[in-house]
Amino acid sequence: MSNSAEYDFLSGIRIVDFTQFEAGPSCTEALAWLGAEVVKIENPGVGDPGRRLRKGQPDDDPYYFQQFNANKKSMTVNLKAPEGLAVVKDLLRKGDVMVENMAPGTIERLGLGYDEVKKLNPKIIYCQVKGFGEGSPYEKNLAFDMIAQAMGGLISVTGEKGRQPVKPGISLGDTGTGMLMAITILGALRKRDKSGEGCRLQVAMQDAMLHYNRINFATQGRTGKAVERDGTRSGGGTNAPSGLFPCKPGGSNDYVWIMTSRANPEHWTRLCKVIGREDLEKDPRFATPQMRVKNDAELDQIIRGWTATRNKYEIMELVGGVFPCGAVLDTLELQNEPSFETRGIMQVMEHKDYKGYKMPGWPVRINGKPPKVKASPALGEHTAEVLQSWLGMSAAQVEKLKADKIAGA
Amino acid sequence: MSNSAEYDFLSGIRIVDFTQFEAGPSCTEALAWLGAEVVKIENPGVGDPGRRLRKGQPDDDPYYFQQFNANKKSMTVNLKAPEGLAVVKDLLRKGDVMVENMAPGTIERLGLGYDEVKKLNPKIIYCQVKGFGEGSPYEKNLAFDMIAQAMGGLISVTGEKGRQPVKPGISLGDTGTGMLMAITILGALRKRDKSGEGCRLQVAMQDAMLHYNRINFATQGRTGKAVERDGTRSGGGTNAPSGLFPCKPGGSNDYVWIMTSRANPEHWTRLCKVIGREDLEKDPRFATPQMRVKNDAELDQIIRGWTATRNKYEIMELVGGVFPCGAVLDTLELQNEPSFETRGIMQVMEHKDYKGYKMPGWPVRINGKPPKVKASPALGEHTAEVLQSWLGMSAAQVEKLKADKIAGA
Repeated sequence: MSNSAEYDFLSGIRIVDFTQFEAGPSCTEALAWLGAEVVKIENPGVGDPGRRLRKGQPDDDPYYFQQFNANKKSMTVNLKAPEGLAVVKDLLRKGDVMVENMAPGTIERLGLGYDEVKKLNPKIIYCQVKGFGEGSPYEKNLAFDMIAQAMGGLISVTGEKGRQPVKPGISLGDTGTGMLMAITILGALRKRDKSGEGCRLQVAMQDAMLHYNRINFATQGRTGKAVERDGTRSGGGTNAPSGLFPCKPGGSNDYVWIMTSRANPEHWTRLCKVIGREDLEKDPRFATPQMRVKNDAELDQIIRGWTATRNKYEIMELVGGVFPCGAVLDTLELQNEPSFETRGIMQVMEHKDYKGYKMPGWPVRINGKPPKVKASPALGEHTAEVLQSWLGMSAAQVEKLKADKIAGA
Repeated sequence: MSNSAEYDFLSGIRIVDFTQFEAGPSCTEALAWLGAEVVKIENPGVGDPGRRLRKGQPDDDPYYFQQFNANKKSMTVNLKAPEGLAVVKDLLRKGDVMVENMAPGTIERLGLGYDEVKKLNPKIIYCQVKGFGEGSPYEKNLAFDMIAQAMGGLISVTGEKGRQPVKPGISLGDTGTGMLMAITILGALRKRDKSGEGCRLQVAMQDAMLHYNRINFATQGRTGKAVERDGTRSGGGTNAPSGLFPCKPGGSNDYVWIMTSRANPEHWTRLCKVIGREDLEKDPRFATPQMRVKNDAELDQIIRGWTATRNKYEIMELVGGVFPCGAVLDTLELQNEPSFETRGIMQVMEHKDYKGYKMPGWPVRINGKPPKVKASPALGEHTAEVLQSWLGMSAAQVEKLKADKIAGA
């Protein structure tokens, strides 16, 4: 089967992209990977602040930018000049989707609020990502990933039991939010194709965090109490064994997570067999799931005795997947695990200036293969191309916009 | 504008849903919230194991099940009886999408592998969620949320500096994976509508975790080293102040995350003003972003002196959003914050047996409102309805299937 199909799921969809940093860019990048034409609208000379994370340092277009802007186009337009605004309005007339994640009130001050854009193009899907929702006590507040993770409850449930909380080490406040918007955009496009009507979509990062925190809201529904953190054990204390166990040689990530589900009693019997302790199955302390939870401290110690004399890869071999067991892998171990590249889950970005950066792409396989990672755009790289292909401008018209410092890097 | 549109983005899309627990159900639930007709195919008498998390306990259809199965239908079919399999094959002939997340090899043993289903319906989008990808050394391994989080690198980056790692306290291995599949399904449907061709989609939970871990892969690209955890501070050590600060009265979640971005120097000057320490702006120890990073221990102590005498809500008031600051809220504080309900981000599920459970729904607002949370289905509740509406069966035919214990609870 041909793989060309995998890139064109969204062919013909035009996205006018005012996003920056990660929450917005992760959303539009997902759509770009699936074949949409995503055009970043950036300020001349500066662009997405994600291009320049360390002022004055030689890290223009850092890996951070490349990660979240693969497969997109970039054009530069001076939005503060009336002619620049007019160009963008023309693009919005031709676009299917507009996405922005500027600070509260900014897009409206630019004259590109929903009511304005809807007048230009009633079919457009107009999308906004903010820190907090309209009607929230914090609706005008600034937000970054960690702020959303704090105020969405994720930090409160992460950390060791009885110690201070910690932030999950990933940028879920950003990418997690972007994914929910991407789903809704694709739903809205389907509706628009039938009805001819666009709509306004809004997501707040704090609200999106509740979506990822639902397992804890379910637990709280049962207990009536705020969920406490216990990040070296499974949630709820209703499975044993389930948690992190230290391995040889005792490095910072030499641990395995071992779990036996009460939904599948065979996990326990298989575990006993793998560690050579079939006797435990008949041990009254561990005879039932309830007893194993009750006596989990003793049980953990037995298992720790087994894991601590082996390294995590050896344990993965010994377990062979017969009960749930996962080594704690660090980012470098993952980068160097060759199957991610052979399977296309990590790909080397094709970029004319930045060579050899192997990065995670879209992880869903389509007919066996993930979509191809293409270059992130240089600032303004596609200004002329987009003006010509979307707006039908002549080369002379493009040159004039550039000479007047309206559009073009 | 009417809000009826918000429920019918995906109207007419029929999903044959063999999913269980959370990774699969979170995906099909997102599609159900946007208006798809999602029919869970469940074993008679037992159903999705997510309905019965504590064997023998009176928690049938716990909040866990309700959270991940809102707005769906359920039918029971005995897949091990040839007539039951035939019924399901008829449903697959009528379906647009099939999703499953059984253990590796199970769906194929049931006779419903991709090659079989494609023969029945070449237009179907056939979707599989597994722990590990085909071609991974662990492709046959069992996985649960925590296993995916360990082997996708999330645990390695979460925890306190210099201490053992912890699991992020959320089920991102499950829901995070489900969201990526949902996006791809909607892309595939768009393509299918044009080409008439279905496809096979596969996502592995481990691979999906790389997607959420990308900020760390970007950092590693710069440093060449595995990213270390430092979950009470911002990633990378390139912003100061940025981290958790303790508040009054010193409870387990009495913290605020305060951040000043080097991309916006005003955050720092505003912070100095809010804490009444404009003198710090001229203090040579803190004169530049680089100096603030260098002297962050001293700086943190100054800020801690200010936060420790105030409670987190008071601090949120004082900051007023002029620089990024977020209180660490626990799940109960969120449950009791009234604006989530007035804004429709949390909704009370309309369920005939379970009353009053207020839960997070789909957090994206469509023309101002999130989609409505409807009941999760009782086991087999819609068996007759689906057999009649999808397959055109008569009431007598339905009764016969029920009498023969082929379909029907």
